[in-house]
Amino acid sequence: MWGVGLMSKTVYYTATSLDGFIADPANSLDWLTQFEQTEGGDYAEFIQTIGAVAMGSTTYEWVIEHHIKPNSPTPQPWPHTQPTWVFSSRQLHGLPNADVRFVRGDVRPVHEIMRREAAGKDVWIVGGGDLAGQFHDHGLLDELIITIAPVTLGGGAALLPRKIASPALQLLSARAWGGVFVRLHYAIQR
Amino acid sequence: MWGVGLMSKTVYYTATSLDGFIADPANSLDWLTQFEQTEGGDYAEFIQTIGAVAMGSTTYEWVIEHHIKPNSPTPQPWPHTQPTWVFSSRQLHGLPNADVRFVRGDVRPVHEIMRREAAGKDVWIVGGGDLAGQFHDHGLLDELIITIAPVTLGGGAALLPRKIASPALQLLSARAWGGVFVRLHYAIQR
Repeated sequence: MWGVGLMSKTVYYTATSLDGFIADPANSLDWLTQFEQTEGGDYAEFIQTIGAVAMGSTTYEWVIEHHIKPNSPTPQPWPHTQPTWVFSSRQLHGLPNADVRFVRGDVRPVHEIMRREAAGKDVWIVGGGDLAGQFHDHGLLDELIITIAPVTLGGGAALLPRKIASPALQLLSARAWGGVFVRLHYAIQR
Repeated sequence: MWGVGLMSKTVYYTATSLDGFIADPANSLDWLTQFEQTEGGDYAEFIQTIGAVAMGSTTYEWVIEHHIKPNSPTPQPWPHTQPTWVFSSRQLHGLPNADVRFVRGDVRPVHEIMRREAAGKDVWIVGGGDLAGQFHDHGLLDELIITIAPVTLGGGAALLPRKIASPALQLLSARAWGGVFVRLHYAIQR
């Protein structure tokens, strides 16, 4: 069992603007959702590899407000079947039929639990950038899978507010899809 | 003649970190120059298409300090044979054997002169990001050719401090090269 567990990777998988923002200054994703009909993405394949999900409170609240829409006539279910850890120093509300666990502080002990529960599958850091950075600070981030949308935002929430330049990232692949997006896959070298 | 002139494009061609910075907070390019031996770039081909060059004062001074090195035992020549316009509100010094013209203020009349002198070739905006943004503000920027280095910087000089999301950029091509860089080519839609 521990052998399988050791193969598990921790991946920051997100979309970004060309200039490195994952949300605009108003915390909107309109610049991204304009492309939601684009064919050729790999999310369905990616999510199969994931056994545990981590996100910050801003991401969590965004999913509730824009995806679940609890006050709409047709609220959507929580999108993840995997257990999800939400990092926040604030008090947040859980959701029915959703395995969501609220945590705070040091990411290391939580990461240990996440990897164990992922049972050999990978850990997905959904965002934001500083949460991914906290995993990186402790040497716990293995890969970046960054999908670049064809926009610039000029400001907003930073993709990854850290300096990772020496050693540089290792480019694993680059792929354009849908005539719109470019997916860049990097390994973090140590 | 004017027919040829109308074909001329204005292109912002630069390298950036994955998180959208063209220089680090100390205004260094060490994160980029670590890859200068990488094979497979297209600068030699690109520069053949260029008839006029524009840059800001920070870029100009960086070229002098890091490329020309006037006080070194073997100073290098100014790298451009094309006429170069340096935008600055400060008083800057020219260079021997370099066609460098210092200008300030509105980019529009300067752009008109640049296109005329480019004689059907393209205009290259070297940087910084705000200068490219000023051309964009006046509808004068046609294409972005952005080479992404496999690093994050977490701060520094912004790639392009503008919102260009509606209409989005048009992805023309994406190409990985040298196992290190990814070159993204976009047209600005109007």
